[in-house]
Amino acid sequence: MRAVDIIIKKKQGLVLTEQEIHFMIDGFVKGIIPDYQISALLMAICFKGLNEEERFHLTKEMLESGEQIDLSAVNGLCVDKHSTGGVGDKTTLVVAPIIASFGLKMAKMSGRGLGHTGGTLDKLESIPGFNINVSSKDFFKQVNEIGIAVVGQTANITPADKKLYALRDVTGTVESVGLIAGSIMSKKLASGAKNILLDVKVGDGAFMKTLEDAQELAKAMVNIGTKFGRKVVAMLTDMDQPLGEAVGNSIEVIEAIETLKGKGPKDFVDLCYRICAEMLIISNVCKNQEEAFKQIKEKIDSGEALNKLRLMIEYQHGNSNVIDDYSLFGTAKEEIIVSAKESGYVKKIHTESIGIAAMILGAGRSTMEDIIDPTVGIKALAKKGDYLNVGDPIAIVYTNGKNTQQAINMLYQSYELSNELVKKSDIILDVIGE
Amino acid sequence: MRAVDIIIKKKQGLVLTEQEIHFMIDGFVKGIIPDYQISALLMAICFKGLNEEERFHLTKEMLESGEQIDLSAVNGLCVDKHSTGGVGDKTTLVVAPIIASFGLKMAKMSGRGLGHTGGTLDKLESIPGFNINVSSKDFFKQVNEIGIAVVGQTANITPADKKLYALRDVTGTVESVGLIAGSIMSKKLASGAKNILLDVKVGDGAFMKTLEDAQELAKAMVNIGTKFGRKVVAMLTDMDQPLGEAVGNSIEVIEAIETLKGKGPKDFVDLCYRICAEMLIISNVCKNQEEAFKQIKEKIDSGEALNKLRLMIEYQHGNSNVIDDYSLFGTAKEEIIVSAKESGYVKKIHTESIGIAAMILGAGRSTMEDIIDPTVGIKALAKKGDYLNVGDPIAIVYTNGKNTQQAINMLYQSYELSNELVKKSDIILDVIGE
Repeated sequence: MRAVDIIIKKKQGLVLTEQEIHFMIDGFVKGIIPDYQISALLMAICFKGLNEEERFHLTKEMLESGEQIDLSAVNGLCVDKHSTGGVGDKTTLVVAPIIASFGLKMAKMSGRGLGHTGGTLDKLESIPGFNINVSSKDFFKQVNEIGIAVVGQTANITPADKKLYALRDVTGTVESVGLIAGSIMSKKLASGAKNILLDVKVGDGAFMKTLEDAQELAKAMVNIGTKFGRKVVAMLTDMDQPLGEAVGNSIEVIEAIETLKGKGPKDFVDLCYRICAEMLIISNVCKNQEEAFKQIKEKIDSGEALNKLRLMIEYQHGNSNVIDDYSLFGTAKEEIIVSAKESGYVKKIHTESIGIAAMILGAGRSTMEDIIDPTVGIKALAKKGDYLNVGDPIAIVYTNGKNTQQAINMLYQSYELSNELVKKSDIILDVIGE
Repeated sequence: MRAVDIIIKKKQGLVLTEQEIHFMIDGFVKGIIPDYQISALLMAICFKGLNEEERFHLTKEMLESGEQIDLSAVNGLCVDKHSTGGVGDKTTLVVAPIIASFGLKMAKMSGRGLGHTGGTLDKLESIPGFNINVSSKDFFKQVNEIGIAVVGQTANITPADKKLYALRDVTGTVESVGLIAGSIMSKKLASGAKNILLDVKVGDGAFMKTLEDAQELAKAMVNIGTKFGRKVVAMLTDMDQPLGEAVGNSIEVIEAIETLKGKGPKDFVDLCYRICAEMLIISNVCKNQEEAFKQIKEKIDSGEALNKLRLMIEYQHGNSNVIDDYSLFGTAKEEIIVSAKESGYVKKIHTESIGIAAMILGAGRSTMEDIIDPTVGIKALAKKGDYLNVGDPIAIVYTNGKNTQQAINMLYQSYELSNELVKKSDIILDVIGE
């Protein structure tokens, strides 16, 4: 078997066998196949794609390249939720406590990454004392006792994916449905949960810009998961505006707490309810959405869901008093209200720009060396379809002085107004794999 | 400027600027841009192509990456002829002496390569004593005195092409019209001749399998040459059967000598006449084909053309008595006649298989380390459209015992017979750039 023949085969649009995919990926990880052959193959895949079988074999190869988390020590059904990443996405902080309050287990090991704001780990670390470095023993103990844990990833999962992604990133071969689906699913499968809810973000602030592309990716991921014997549902959700209002770290945790207190922004509450409902339905806890919504509301009204978050903070050595006193998070030096200079309906929001504005304030990382400032960020108050009069607040900037004016300018450029009425749209665009 | 952005630009089918092509190629040669980014770019080019401007800039970049031969020390018009490579292609050995006999200058510096048989240098080295290692001073002296020299390449021409080709070879990115045209033309332009005749082989035994592909390549090469201010004509010639009869090294030189004596195989004679005529016309020596044919015949009948070959052999320290006594070449131990086992018209010839059969006998190199046996090879006697009775000779195998039976078996499989009459076709399929 020669690498060049496999490259040419894919270049011609032919289907690669399990053996050929193994030869390339395993050889790449072992340093036998050079990166210049892999990057040529990746580019050919970008043009010719991978069929369902090839996607399965690629995912399997990446999954089996490293450790796989064994969740069999957990008493109960382990479920997981993954987002492809958006602006203001603090969904896990709300969904995990709700789901845990139903007796399901949310045993999450997360990695860090680059982004407009920190990841879930960084957001949790804005809680004073919160510890993400939990031993395997303590992790399983915590999950068994309270049903919820979000800790740092220590296992060496999917090293093939890491190596492949690093190459894709510098060779213009990131955007290929089969490669993206294989990358995400190999990591999710390695994390061990039986039931997986995928939140595929669509729009300006997301990786997938169009509904069509997102549907294709969602189908691909659901297919892969199903072939591996997992229950997978993908929800396609709108990212043409920031999710909720807060875009930052501590301010996102506060918004999540507010939501668990029944006071969250409407779009974010809608999303959390729908995601929880799907997870409860595929896990046979609820029969349908109506029943799920009713029971979720009870878990929030009774404080059971919020209590799960409180317990998790306490188990992980954080100060759970933050739940009742947000000042314990610490605050940014300055809060600047950005007001409308003209009137009109909010027609279009450049979500990605708002994310970048938050990042340059210090809320996110553009390189792995960047240090996150937990208190800074943006509250994006104006939603699509809102009518703004001159002087109405569009957003609030929380800053410690870094790139403040630049962020404010970006915010102004992020909102397009119109004199004509703009319809508000539902946050859920499609559900695949129900 | 970032390499990844340039890769993505080409992936999206956009046109790269001169600066972007320079950034990539120059960076690659200098070791700044890693090979994995270049191979991804090359694969994107295979799918999205290069337009005329991009081909020009790529060629320029490769041309300027190394030395360029300065032929200004030659008194007279330098012309050159290049073949894309075929089975039994000894055309240079006939065309160069004919052209030189008209007073034009054929100052050829050639490289060696892989192939079914040796290149022109290897073929000439089958002449006892023939020296291809000629100093620059002696080279120019020889060209000025007798109008013809074929020597080994010592200058470091187009190193960017060499590095790029080595990468293309192992990443499945050889087959792209823009890349092939740029590669060939950068070398031809660096070789310094003003007028260039390109012999683009088409068919089973050639790199270009279809007339359409060959036409596209020919047009691309003519366009590039014209943009660099050279006169370029491309002839598309049939490679669906070996050229002439001999496929080897000394046996090809003998066939070339026979042709210069006016006794060559018809298809090969036709090709040499047409190529010479085109070269004479673009060099303003002859007005049209009719005049050219008449004068070429005179140069052969008078022995002037053969004398040019004799002079070249003498100037380069070879034994020119081989021209009158072929036994001085030495002979293979065994000559085996391969005879028809059934009767019929020769319908199809798998030319490439015949080339490979010659190679495994020892006539060519599959790796640069292989040593060529100058005396072995094949005479492919049966031509397309010939009628064969059982027992009629198809071919003669000249062997020193290496892979003889395997070569004979390959020969049998290389000829397809039919009961129906098969039309003979013209060797010239098209001419581009006249």
